[in-house]
Amino acid sequence: MTMSYKMDLGKMKITSEMLEKYASEVIKEIEPFFKPKAIAVIGASRDVNSPGWVTFKILLENSQKGVLKAKVYGVNIKGGELFGQKLYKSISEIPDQIDHAVILVPAKYVPSVLDECGKKGVKVASIISAGFSEIGNVELERKVLETARKNGIRVIGPNGLGVFDAWNGVDTMFLPTTKMADGKELLACPRPKKGYIMFLSQSGALGVSVLDYMYGEGIGLSKFISYGNKIDVDEIDMFFWALKDDTVRAVMIYMEGIKSLGRALVNVAREFSKHKPIVILKGGKTKAGARAVASHTASLAGDVKVYEAAVNKMGAIWAEDLIEFLDATKALAFQPPAAGNNVAIVTDGGGAGILATDKAERVGINLPPPSEKLLSKLKQAQKDGIIPSVATFANPYDISGSAGDDSYAVALESVLEEENIDAALVIALHHPPLLTPKFVDKIASVASKFKKPVVAVDIGGTGMAKWVRERFDDLGVPSFPTPERGIVALNALIRYGMFLKREGVLDEYLDKWRPIA
Amino acid sequence: MTMSYKMDLGKMKITSEMLEKYASEVIKEIEPFFKPKAIAVIGASRDVNSPGWVTFKILLENSQKGVLKAKVYGVNIKGGELFGQKLYKSISEIPDQIDHAVILVPAKYVPSVLDECGKKGVKVASIISAGFSEIGNVELERKVLETARKNGIRVIGPNGLGVFDAWNGVDTMFLPTTKMADGKELLACPRPKKGYIMFLSQSGALGVSVLDYMYGEGIGLSKFISYGNKIDVDEIDMFFWALKDDTVRAVMIYMEGIKSLGRALVNVAREFSKHKPIVILKGGKTKAGARAVASHTASLAGDVKVYEAAVNKMGAIWAEDLIEFLDATKALAFQPPAAGNNVAIVTDGGGAGILATDKAERVGINLPPPSEKLLSKLKQAQKDGIIPSVATFANPYDISGSAGDDSYAVALESVLEEENIDAALVIALHHPPLLTPKFVDKIASVASKFKKPVVAVDIGGTGMAKWVRERFDDLGVPSFPTPERGIVALNALIRYGMFLKREGVLDEYLDKWRPIA
Repeated sequence: MTMSYKMDLGKMKITSEMLEKYASEVIKEIEPFFKPKAIAVIGASRDVNSPGWVTFKILLENSQKGVLKAKVYGVNIKGGELFGQKLYKSISEIPDQIDHAVILVPAKYVPSVLDECGKKGVKVASIISAGFSEIGNVELERKVLETARKNGIRVIGPNGLGVFDAWNGVDTMFLPTTKMADGKELLACPRPKKGYIMFLSQSGALGVSVLDYMYGEGIGLSKFISYGNKIDVDEIDMFFWALKDDTVRAVMIYMEGIKSLGRALVNVAREFSKHKPIVILKGGKTKAGARAVASHTASLAGDVKVYEAAVNKMGAIWAEDLIEFLDATKALAFQPPAAGNNVAIVTDGGGAGILATDKAERVGINLPPPSEKLLSKLKQAQKDGIIPSVATFANPYDISGSAGDDSYAVALESVLEEENIDAALVIALHHPPLLTPKFVDKIASVASKFKKPVVAVDIGGTGMAKWVRERFDDLGVPSFPTPERGIVALNALIRYGMFLKREGVLDEYLDKWRPIA
Repeated sequence: MTMSYKMDLGKMKITSEMLEKYASEVIKEIEPFFKPKAIAVIGASRDVNSPGWVTFKILLENSQKGVLKAKVYGVNIKGGELFGQKLYKSISEIPDQIDHAVILVPAKYVPSVLDECGKKGVKVASIISAGFSEIGNVELERKVLETARKNGIRVIGPNGLGVFDAWNGVDTMFLPTTKMADGKELLACPRPKKGYIMFLSQSGALGVSVLDYMYGEGIGLSKFISYGNKIDVDEIDMFFWALKDDTVRAVMIYMEGIKSLGRALVNVAREFSKHKPIVILKGGKTKAGARAVASHTASLAGDVKVYEAAVNKMGAIWAEDLIEFLDATKALAFQPPAAGNNVAIVTDGGGAGILATDKAERVGINLPPPSEKLLSKLKQAQKDGIIPSVATFANPYDISGSAGDDSYAVALESVLEEENIDAALVIALHHPPLLTPKFVDKIASVASKFKKPVVAVDIGGTGMAKWVRERFDDLGVPSFPTPERGIVALNALIRYGMFLKREGVLDEYLDKWRPIA
């Protein structure tokens, strides 16, 4: 059914059954991208740090370490040897079956290489080579697609970075992992740790920057797809894949051009969103931005209102900037959606609570005052000496700098037990002297008792602040370094919950939802 | 002239001469807060990790290390010894002149301690003790102020953290520097490195969190003042001080209550702003936020529009959230203000350039297209092989992932030479293979030739990205980890330039302006 089916998907409403059916077919076709049996790097090169050198090296090492459960072969038209491995002059010489070809040869050779791949029985190709429609070579690109179709080969690319899969070790990113500065070898293009986010990017350079940012923030990744000119495999295929991939709990997409947002995509995404959340960052949201898009990828950025409407229809979360893009996705990967926009803020710092409150009102979050029942519970906890006497209960619930570990546990549990509270933001500044590191586990343990989202904030950039946030993340409570970022992240869970409610599937979704940790 | 003069300041327009005159008087009075000859810690305690223990320890260590050029004495009513030092039963017993008292005794003893300080000739007191108006003890607080005035003692506090001065080693913050987690000693309340920002905070807890955040982002600090209930020394005094303090290049203020924003403050700030920039973050900008302020400090948050108008009149930059608060201040401390809102974006990543463009339009920054002259210069650089042939020149100037170190230097110099360009954002993603670490120095060197602000962005959270940003900062080019944050920071320099222009002092300001590095 390769490829042409997408035309049809634009014409009909996608039902849950259709999603399942298409998914099972597409998964079979594209599986070798992520779970290959044997990979051939066509264009493996002895030129140190060149794309063909880096790619072959990384894949070979991943295979030797056992991260990648596939054999890796190098192909170079001149033959020879690299990293102790024979380089074959052609893929046809390899004495093994190959299902995934990574192609790095100059653009003009790609069609003939694809023909050879076809004869060899290759199922999928990551075409890294550039020099196609992005510089006007439209005809050559058309020929690549035609050749791939003729040979039944699914293609990611050309002119992208291909695939990085943190779980399976597939890594076609040709950028060296390290660079030298001040005589030291520094991480320059880090690969994020295993995680639950699938990241699709129209821009390879931005994609890599985001991976670097994710690594720094300790956010894990399932897989990254940089499809460049995107002549074949696109968001739709990846939604079908993600539906059945347990390592994908949320999808984030960076897109620029309008052609990315066809009817088929909207139809499929809308059904997919009932199962897993999508976050979209659109480059070219403004007039000036749209001009920049035209100059960058020679594609039309389109009217931002059309985009927003489409994204809304898809049930996807629209991110305003890079930080929201990542924070929203992290929150959605970690926590269940909220059933409404009534939030309780629990904090040990009054000022931080106020900043969160300001941001909450700006984004439309409601902070209901405490019920009589809640107030009496909290006051009892004060009498029992669990919550400090100076605490104030007006939402924000400010348990003060005299708070101890149990103050948090009791306050959070009390607010989450309220029927009119849908979610909680816990501002857990680590500085107060009575707090021990155990308070993180206590908060996470309370959060796990409810299918209501909890998001944590600790402000700071050093040892203890990093430790606290990492521990929260490890326990499945997404954490952020400023109150406003915490609110924006929580709001993504509220917006997603609203979509699921509108579609009548929230209860079903929450029934199936399981914690990450 | 202690204190009462502030009433008068609200009634008149402050001239440059008056600013100078008041400054010289106030500086004399409050100098011992920052350059004491001898400090007495009244309430030094043998109770490990208690405020009196931590404060005495830190001050003593700073003195012993020579960071603090003052002798440090401990006072405890019971006498005894701590850290090998005698504890005096009363300040009157200390065989030395004392000019700065740090007071940590229970609230009710503070008036009598102040009387003793007066007899001893103490000039200033940091009153850390809590238990005054914040819990309803208004009368006691009034008595503290009265006693201080009677004795000619200027007061910071009570109920705050006091003073932290990175240059002179005065540090009255009673929070322990480290905490234990997983058996390791982690930085929990780090002290930022020496820098050029003065931070005034109405909230001690938020203040400490921000210091932690600054430390993590590598932002330096001149001094931090946490004045708590602020019965005496306030923003006005600190403006007078900052005017003549070369370690202060920008002032950031976190405030909640409306009483902070009296006429005297507006008048003084407006004249001060002609010399050094101020950034203000207001807690309680929304209705919900204002309610939270009332609950936190029992003060009125006031109408946000009144605030915004006052801040505007002051020539201060209004920050929307914590990140903008810090980013704007950092930019203002590092770079000269912009003479207009025409900006050029130079980038090696198309996607990142587009995100910056979107944000630029949102905040009202103009990205003019290249002039014929500029275009021909850039095209010549392409012919000469300095700028890659795939580069596009439409502002953003996308010099592409094939850019080398010199591509940046030539592109940046070319745009800054344009008369209709007031500032530049350089998106310097470090990932492209041809870039060496030298590109940072080349960019900074070009930037230093112009009195036009340049702000840098590198996305990423690991070795090389951190190295690049730190190097930019060291060379006086403020750097940020996302394109949107770079634009917001640059916009602060534009807004400040607009104020200076409106007041007719921009040229004079730029004449005097000197680079940080």
